[in-house]
Amino acid sequence: MIAQHPEPHQIRLENVLTALGNPTRMQILRVLAGGGEQSCGSILPGVSKSTLTRHWRVLRDSGVIWQRPYGRENLLSLRREDLDARFPGLLDALIAAAGSEAGEGDAAGSEVGEGEPVGA
Amino acid sequence: MIAQHPEPHQIRLENVLTALGNPTRMQILRVLAGGGEQSCGSILPGVSKSTLTRHWRVLRDSGVIWQRPYGRENLLSLRREDLDARFPGLLDALIAAAGSEAGEGDAAGSEVGEGEPVGA
Repeated sequence: MIAQHPEPHQIRLENVLTALGNPTRMQILRVLAGGGEQSCGSILPGVSKSTLTRHWRVLRDSGVIWQRPYGRENLLSLRREDLDARFPGLLDALIAAAGSEAGEGDAAGSEVGEGEPVGA
Repeated sequence: MIAQHPEPHQIRLENVLTALGNPTRMQILRVLAGGGEQSCGSILPGVSKSTLTRHWRVLRDSGVIWQRPYGRENLLSLRREDLDARFPGLLDALIAAAGSEAGEGDAAGSEVGEGEPVGA
């Protein structure tokens, strides 16, 4: 395991909220919310490695994710047990909030072009 | 009402989390969670007015609080209905998390001096 993970009792609400107050990191949370470990290269295809490395660090240092080396990559997973024990209900509320906001985004996207009759 | 409040649909999760990822603003949230309006001068006695003005702005612009002029002061209240409608369960989970963390702090504080027998 990479060294800089806080112990469960060191996880601070302030750091968790600051870490997740960012759309890319919230997107990463939503992917990891599915459970299990994901290789760091597979989570957000198309985002540069250096950008992602910064995001993994913020998420790891705040106590939101586990990060462990595996071959030439890192595997990432959500610290669900630690977060649920420390802040009951918070993680699920955050994931639901992120999902509902992302759903609105999708809906807005699907509205593009609506109201323009085809061939008019 | 002061002008810069976002409309309910403009409240962004990212902004709410960034606003609350700060111990002073989380403390303000806990005070306002009791309900009703509070005058801005009464919420955190001992903190300078200019510091608080900055915190009110962040909380207001992110959609966490209402702020309205009342005589020479402002009255503040939590936008509970808007936040609950937009992100169900999130506000209560955040308030509970802040409370449990503050409780740990209090518990740690009350331990000061324990283990030192009086008069030893």
